[in-house]
Amino acid sequence: MARNTHVAADHNAPPVTRILGRYVATHPSRGWSDAVDHEAHRTFMNWLGCAVGAAQHESAVAALAAVAELQPAAQATVLGRAQQVDMASAALVNGITSHTFDFDDTHLKTIIHPAGPVASAVLALAEHTGASGRAVIDALVLGIDVACRVGNAMYPDHYDRGWHITGSTGMLGAAAACARLMGLDEDKTVMALGIAASQPVGLREQFGTMTKPFHPGGAARAGLMSALMARHGYTASAKALEAPRGFMQVISAKSDWNEITDELGTRFEISFNTYKPFACGIVIHPSIDACVQLREQGVTPENVERIELIVHPLVLELTGKKEPTDGLLAKFSVYHGCAAGLIFGRAAEEEFSDHIVTRDDVVALRRKVVATADGGVDEAAALVKAVLKDGREINVRVDHAIGSLQRPMTDANLDAKFHALADPILGEARVRELIGACWRLGDAADVRTLTALARP
Amino acid sequence: MARNTHVAADHNAPPVTRILGRYVATHPSRGWSDAVDHEAHRTFMNWLGCAVGAAQHESAVAALAAVAELQPAAQATVLGRAQQVDMASAALVNGITSHTFDFDDTHLKTIIHPAGPVASAVLALAEHTGASGRAVIDALVLGIDVACRVGNAMYPDHYDRGWHITGSTGMLGAAAACARLMGLDEDKTVMALGIAASQPVGLREQFGTMTKPFHPGGAARAGLMSALMARHGYTASAKALEAPRGFMQVISAKSDWNEITDELGTRFEISFNTYKPFACGIVIHPSIDACVQLREQGVTPENVERIELIVHPLVLELTGKKEPTDGLLAKFSVYHGCAAGLIFGRAAEEEFSDHIVTRDDVVALRRKVVATADGGVDEAAALVKAVLKDGREINVRVDHAIGSLQRPMTDANLDAKFHALADPILGEARVRELIGACWRLGDAADVRTLTALARP
Repeated sequence: MARNTHVAADHNAPPVTRILGRYVATHPSRGWSDAVDHEAHRTFMNWLGCAVGAAQHESAVAALAAVAELQPAAQATVLGRAQQVDMASAALVNGITSHTFDFDDTHLKTIIHPAGPVASAVLALAEHTGASGRAVIDALVLGIDVACRVGNAMYPDHYDRGWHITGSTGMLGAAAACARLMGLDEDKTVMALGIAASQPVGLREQFGTMTKPFHPGGAARAGLMSALMARHGYTASAKALEAPRGFMQVISAKSDWNEITDELGTRFEISFNTYKPFACGIVIHPSIDACVQLREQGVTPENVERIELIVHPLVLELTGKKEPTDGLLAKFSVYHGCAAGLIFGRAAEEEFSDHIVTRDDVVALRRKVVATADGGVDEAAALVKAVLKDGREINVRVDHAIGSLQRPMTDANLDAKFHALADPILGEARVRELIGACWRLGDAADVRTLTALARP
Repeated sequence: MARNTHVAADHNAPPVTRILGRYVATHPSRGWSDAVDHEAHRTFMNWLGCAVGAAQHESAVAALAAVAELQPAAQATVLGRAQQVDMASAALVNGITSHTFDFDDTHLKTIIHPAGPVASAVLALAEHTGASGRAVIDALVLGIDVACRVGNAMYPDHYDRGWHITGSTGMLGAAAACARLMGLDEDKTVMALGIAASQPVGLREQFGTMTKPFHPGGAARAGLMSALMARHGYTASAKALEAPRGFMQVISAKSDWNEITDELGTRFEISFNTYKPFACGIVIHPSIDACVQLREQGVTPENVERIELIVHPLVLELTGKKEPTDGLLAKFSVYHGCAAGLIFGRAAEEEFSDHIVTRDDVVALRRKVVATADGGVDEAAALVKAVLKDGREINVRVDHAIGSLQRPMTDANLDAKFHALADPILGEARVRELIGACWRLGDAADVRTLTALARP
């Protein structure tokens, strides 16, 4: 309880709520490079595949059962399922499913998973209103820019103190995106951001439970409802983000206002979005990548005596579970990630299923992994040494894992990932159509042609 | 930006999430004194009157227009209006209306308005499921106990750093009450509290806008949905409240765990609930009370030169608006409160309407009020001196305003307040019936007999 309770408030913050509201309301459609627009399509497609893939997960089933008690109108698709629910509930459930496998996109500067809150809100609204694909892409780019810029301003302090930053910035991104899609003017967009500012969602203590994926879902719903309320004249503080008792100063000791305003409209944070090759927290990826490379160099579960891992302390803080007992907990175990990489050469959702996580050979190999924290190792890196039973040692150093900005997933990689996730739910032929619709989303006259393909 | 970012986490907190979950799930029905049970009825009635009274307010209209876009099922009553909406939306809107006039109940130890989140959630759920009045009263007592005990543990630090504590504890109270009403077992009640813990709602920067009353509404909806999700097997951390990266340590530097556990089941925080005679923030009440007393002693707007007010610094910090330009802002003006008390002898909702707030004589008298902050004056007190034009001075000292625990509103006072609020909406005869139904709520076989009376 040693936190300093004396808060020296910053009374001279720039009016970032209004600056962002104006930006979202007035930035031109497709007012960015082709590369940014393509990245938006990649972000959308990766998000959609994750959501479809988790459509039958028990967290989706539980959330939908709760939603069903509200007797919702059939307004928007629950991705990967036959039913439709009201758009706010669709935003909630699709936000949950898209993050359930921890397989969604990551804005590496902040560890925000921006599509979960933003795309879940905007697609549900767009489907109900029959919006164009262009309007959805525009809203997605701008909404993600808002969430990630606010995240940049508060990271790392905000995250360090225990907020799950995806849900505690995502409601702003979702509100911005929905306000844009609705065509709200600057003043009402400011109000939408203001209403959303009172509703951060997410604590890191929830990691390893269904409430972790609830965070982007809850943020999506909060953002969509905030924009709806603003449209109908509901008011909030126009300084809700920056005031001394506003959002950022209340939930973070760090508020770098320049991160919000610098290069606004010319630098787009979606450019820094990445997509995961492995179905778990990003901090484990370098270690898995290294173990996959060890496997390619002939290391096997049979011939290995010990695997020595040296990583940044954050890796063990976030994913230090040594003996995960089910798939959800295994997502927070760098030990399991290494075992999966070495045994299977991959770590997709299947490798985080309960029956794999508890398999004898997996448990045995996991126990051979010895991890050491070293502040001198970059968070993006991993140093891995395999000590073999015959005494040989094989070293692999990963500076940037596959899926990083330096070694991005290709479009073909994303197609393959989408198929692996969605084929079991929708069938291969339908998925091929859906992938095509994703790549062409910016040209679609009505997003309902796409959402119809996402129902079995 | 001087807040200390180095957080020394408390790893030895008692398991308060589970302790509260067990308490809510297992405490006997009516397991408290007649006085506590009667206070629960007073709390319920005062809350209901406030909600009905604000049914036509523009914030209710705006919120309902947003809700209508979801095409909600007719499950629960919007109090004071003909329509019904889904129970989650009813919890939202009734939470908003009950706090719109700042006329609802106050747990003075924490400045929490506990009924807004808790009663709004539980009545909506009870109406949809046809629960008994006894079940509602039980849920209300236990839900308010949870919200206020968590508030006691974090107050004042949590409030000082900018959280609107009503909405940032209310989702826990609402989740607890709804879990109780649903009959969830201990484990599922713990999950309901855990899911709710990720959803605190409310920033003090929003004071003076519609988003202030949104906070109890948003908390009511979040709590109800958390209980519904827990019922269907959705999971959360069972240490969501107390863990180092759980709710309390993340959003407050003060976590007095004993406030949660001491006398649990024998001391009920609803016993410390109070009801406002004046339609504004509680901190202004001693000043208004004093000015009403000045009026009774012959001070008039015509014969007064100046009114000198000495109050605790918090009063001016919260309600220091000197020139409020509309009714909502006037709620945060101790200057306006004094003028209303002296001119009208009361400060009900009418005295905070736009046309009164901007009336020339009111503006003129407001400018004669000079307020001084003095840390030596108790928050509950006010020292007021009227300096008359003839040179005389009249002093009034209020140590505890009417409506305080020391000078509580009587049941008859509450009846009169209810009539003043609800008669314009429902008519006097219907309101008399509704008041009777409130006092007999604990004996009602089905709360729908009461909610039917709350629709015009």
